[in-house]
Amino acid sequence: MQAADEPDFSYDGDALSARLDEAFSAMFDRECAALWVATGTAANCLALASMVPPEGAAVCHRDAHIEGDECGAPGFFLHGAKLLPAGGDGAKLTPETIAAVIDPIPDDVHRAQPHAVSITQASELGRVYALAELDALSGFVTERGLKLHVDGARFANAVAHLDCAPAEACSGADALSFGFVKNGGMGAEAIVFFDPAAAEMIRYRRKRAGHLQSKGRYLAAQILALLENDLWLENARAANAAAQEIAASAKGRLMQPVEVNEVFLELSEAECAVLRDRGFGFYARKGGARFVTSWNSRPEHVAALAGAIASL
Amino acid sequence: MQAADEPDFSYDGDALSARLDEAFSAMFDRECAALWVATGTAANCLALASMVPPEGAAVCHRDAHIEGDECGAPGFFLHGAKLLPAGGDGAKLTPETIAAVIDPIPDDVHRAQPHAVSITQASELGRVYALAELDALSGFVTERGLKLHVDGARFANAVAHLDCAPAEACSGADALSFGFVKNGGMGAEAIVFFDPAAAEMIRYRRKRAGHLQSKGRYLAAQILALLENDLWLENARAANAAAQEIAASAKGRLMQPVEVNEVFLELSEAECAVLRDRGFGFYARKGGARFVTSWNSRPEHVAALAGAIASL
Amino acid sequence: MQAADEPDFSYDGDALSARLDEAFSAMFDRECAALWVATGTAANCLALASMVPPEGAAVCHRDAHIEGDECGAPGFFLHGAKLLPAGGDGAKLTPETIAAVIDPIPDDVHRAQPHAVSITQASELGRVYALAELDALSGFVTERGLKLHVDGARFANAVAHLDCAPAEACSGADALSFGFVKNGGMGAEAIVFFDPAAAEMIRYRRKRAGHLQSKGRYLAAQILALLENDLWLENARAANAAAQEIAASAKGRLMQPVEVNEVFLELSEAECAVLRDRGFGFYARKGGARFVTSWNSRPEHVAALAGAIASL
Amino acid sequence: MQAADEPDFSYDGDALSARLDEAFSAMFDRECAALWVATGTAANCLALASMVPPEGAAVCHRDAHIEGDECGAPGFFLHGAKLLPAGGDGAKLTPETIAAVIDPIPDDVHRAQPHAVSITQASELGRVYALAELDALSGFVTERGLKLHVDGARFANAVAHLDCAPAEACSGADALSFGFVKNGGMGAEAIVFFDPAAAEMIRYRRKRAGHLQSKGRYLAAQILALLENDLWLENARAANAAAQEIAASAKGRLMQPVEVNEVFLELSEAECAVLRDRGFGFYARKGGARFVTSWNSRPEHVAALAGAIASL
Repeated sequence: MQAADEPDFSYDGDALSARLDEAFSAMFDRECAALWVATGTAANCLALASMVPPEGAAVCHRDAHIEGDECGAPGFFLHGAKLLPAGGDGAKLTPETIAAVIDPIPDDVHRAQPHAVSITQASELGRVYALAELDALSGFVTERGLKLHVDGARFANAVAHLDCAPAEACSGADALSFGFVKNGGMGAEAIVFFDPAAAEMIRYRRKRAGHLQSKGRYLAAQILALLENDLWLENARAANAAAQEIAASAKGRLMQPVEVNEVFLELSEAECAVLRDRGFGFYARKGGARFVTSWNSRPEHVAALAGAIASL
Repeated sequence: MQAADEPDFSYDGDALSARLDEAFSAMFDRECAALWVATGTAANCLALASMVPPEGAAVCHRDAHIEGDECGAPGFFLHGAKLLPAGGDGAKLTPETIAAVIDPIPDDVHRAQPHAVSITQASELGRVYALAELDALSGFVTERGLKLHVDGARFANAVAHLDCAPAEACSGADALSFGFVKNGGMGAEAIVFFDPAAAEMIRYRRKRAGHLQSKGRYLAAQILALLENDLWLENARAANAAAQEIAASAKGRLMQPVEVNEVFLELSEAECAVLRDRGFGFYARKGGARFVTSWNSRPEHVAALAGAIASL
Repeated sequence: MQAADEPDFSYDGDALSARLDEAFSAMFDRECAALWVATGTAANCLALASMVPPEGAAVCHRDAHIEGDECGAPGFFLHGAKLLPAGGDGAKLTPETIAAVIDPIPDDVHRAQPHAVSITQASELGRVYALAELDALSGFVTERGLKLHVDGARFANAVAHLDCAPAEACSGADALSFGFVKNGGMGAEAIVFFDPAAAEMIRYRRKRAGHLQSKGRYLAAQILALLENDLWLENARAANAAAQEIAASAKGRLMQPVEVNEVFLELSEAECAVLRDRGFGFYARKGGARFVTSWNSRPEHVAALAGAIASL
Repeated sequence: MQAADEPDFSYDGDALSARLDEAFSAMFDRECAALWVATGTAANCLALASMVPPEGAAVCHRDAHIEGDECGAPGFFLHGAKLLPAGGDGAKLTPETIAAVIDPIPDDVHRAQPHAVSITQASELGRVYALAELDALSGFVTERGLKLHVDGARFANAVAHLDCAPAEACSGADALSFGFVKNGGMGAEAIVFFDPAAAEMIRYRRKRAGHLQSKGRYLAAQILALLENDLWLENARAANAAAQEIAASAKGRLMQPVEVNEVFLELSEAECAVLRDRGFGFYARKGGARFVTSWNSRPEHVAALAGAIASL
């Protein structure tokens, strides 16, 4: 790997890290500033820190990763700012569900005021915001004077599904957490700021959070390798295709349309047990189970799972 | 006022502040440590700070003051710990509504773990936890290893309604925000710690939050004056009685049973306008209005409001 | 007291609180926004919160109250921002002592960057910044792109000493903690923002810190009463004069020139004991003691102390 | 690399992460809990978070990395707790220098109370605490009821220098930041808790800080690989030896005895320029320069630098 060939400046002063801005600016066809971090949690929280002051609030879906799966990390990184959970089918927000949460908030000092909206593309239920949905959302947040953050842990899968330009898949965003770890990376995510000036303060916040790695070039190298020749997109397509294969075997059980690399199925506990006995691993809650495919899911494994489900 | 008679030691080193522990220990018939602060928000948040670490969470009702009316103060004082809003009729929590929120939280590091429950006695809808309800709650929180905080902004009114010993009205609590400002005080609330050791760290936190007033004896003096001869209880009874008078005039409109000094009425916007024209002030939301009586509500005003409502 | 005459809107929506902006704008001959809080710690920390982001730093004297006597309150209110202690005779900063601290800080993400300077007028050693010193400081901070905060716990005493317009005594300040508690107030200080826009965010922060008292009109009333007919200045002059009387009796012992209401004297432990035996209270550290006079120090007490010191 | 061979559980639920506790327990001959994180900043701050509450303070050397080179990270992770900088030759603390800082702090609520001491082994000036020095320190902190943290970014180099058991080189520590990144690791450090119970809360804090990597097995793999056959020690010895070679060429210029892999030399700006022209990279401040050798410094490079310095 290029990063290991020879020494370079430490932290993010190296040649590879320097190429990130350019690479994402080219991808999104506008001037971007991009910062690597090791985890999606750090990416989400640092992105939000550029939008939400400690006394403020951000709206997210009640199923959002930042709300339920990061052990209160937004509370830590935003110094106690509030998350305002909202609803929406498929774990996707709409102008209406956001309005239902923020319209009752009077503009007085007794209430934390909303400063941003965070959406997940693709969502926690594997659903993708269509371009028209993004347009509506982005119009709404602009009208309300809010910033828009996109948690893109599965952004690649969403772009693959939409078959559109990356910029379209996060239209209106002020910052994007562009995930690579679920898509072939080892420990590198990118925060892409569409207003490069917004990144400046976050460089200090990244250091302050212990996320400025001295050998950051290894993170940059991962990201650049995945961007090269659209490997990120190829990986995502592979994962999406595997999910489709599983979905096809489970028509009557689908709890959500399958759009990316997650398949949510109605399965009884007994059925879950059967699949587990055959060696398949997955998360399950009463009545349902989630199957996640990967950029490197092996065709024979996928076929085996599809077959096992079909024969339940 | 005694506090002004002569100089004394500053901060909380004065003779009046020193009497608080004793006064509340006598009232609750157990050893207590009591700290004055200027506001209910400070009282609630400092009390919770003794129970919930930054990475933890506290359950409260979704209508709780700490959740919606303190501009994120718990996020500030608890360093980003989460509030987990739960349901319950009359803005009161039950073991079932708490369980519904915490049972789905797996004990792993991805989720902020619950450390405490905060209830409001009387609740934000003017409802009082009965002794049996408190027993059930306190059994539940103990069983789950949680601490119990009681927001008692209207604790006096609750005790007056229950006609019980103060200790019974907050049975099982680890700390109580004992409100005086709504009951005749000028700017003094007490945090009562039923485990005196828990107060020690909070003394530093109080200073650190700018809530250690150098002339704290004036706060102690207010509290002691209200405790003397049960003036606090007499005041609360007066306020409760005024609310009953209003309630009696508005039978068909009551949105909640009237138990303390708040009356929630179904009123149209037009009806609200009529009352406002006659000089009455109150909060209103679509379809309803809240009337709050006070320790010093004048009988003629109360009668006038009751009459005005009856004649709507 | 006017505030108690009749009910008014709660929090800071009352008529008295509304007069503060006007009163301070008149005093400082420019548009100001003024917020009351109960303590100097809250005033200092909220003022600084308008200047210093969590990842930043503020320079203060190593003897500053915010550095050593507020139990880390700036760390709490500023979410972990750093204080950078600097030196200077008489507990006063100079451009040189500030530069000595900030010049070695490289402008990179490994170091918290300075955003503000906080000075104390009069200082913790009872020393007053002369107008020329303030000009030099204010030129320096402007040149370095820093904000200037003035901790004015004894601002009245400084103005009395300088015998100048209040605006001159804090020339160049972006915000002033204007102290009243040490000058006749019971529990009210004012934060004066010379850029009214800077106050907006702080209104939320004040609430969030539990410092928005529901009966805030009692705080406003105290401040207005002290401003009326320059009572604040008269009180400060009385305190300063008392300090001069004591100083005159202790010429050879003065550790600092006496400019306001603090007298620092070289006293042995034995001498301290003698004075304590005669009923005088004061802080002492090895070799020295601090005597603080007050707006209401009684002439006979002052004379007695002066005599006691003279006869040591 | 073992970690990449096959899938495993994510986060720290994998087989490699599970081996860390055992590996460090064996190394230190007592039960330890070890957590990987990506950076020394995260390691230091999470370790300290187990010792210092938000209202407290920690003593460190004024040259400590946590004080000056982490952009206020301790303020962030410790929620505003204070660092109390102390002195000491060679950037090493002593009981005396610690006492000079904490003895004047009265035990009252106006001052952040010390809860821990953080030392750096080897220090920021490349100096190593001798075993007797550690004994003295550890006795002192125990006597004062403080916890002891060891920042071991160069712990391996210190052990190599002391030629002792690892446990001896951090005797008395409650937690150790065991550095691997400067010693051959790519992005993995270990926090070693000598009281395993203290690690439990920190697991949540690690997640909350975005430092729980989903493919954490790659971090565990690095650490295990370096521990195997004492590779960590061999690497450190190589770096130390290279530093000795440079030191030998620069006898008259040494600003500090060379004990680990850092050489501090008196060099004029002109001399620095000469070395830079020959391609050597290093940090320099007026009058001095720091040369850092590495586990993989090539002999010919080291010899070239030594020669260049000798011929200045």
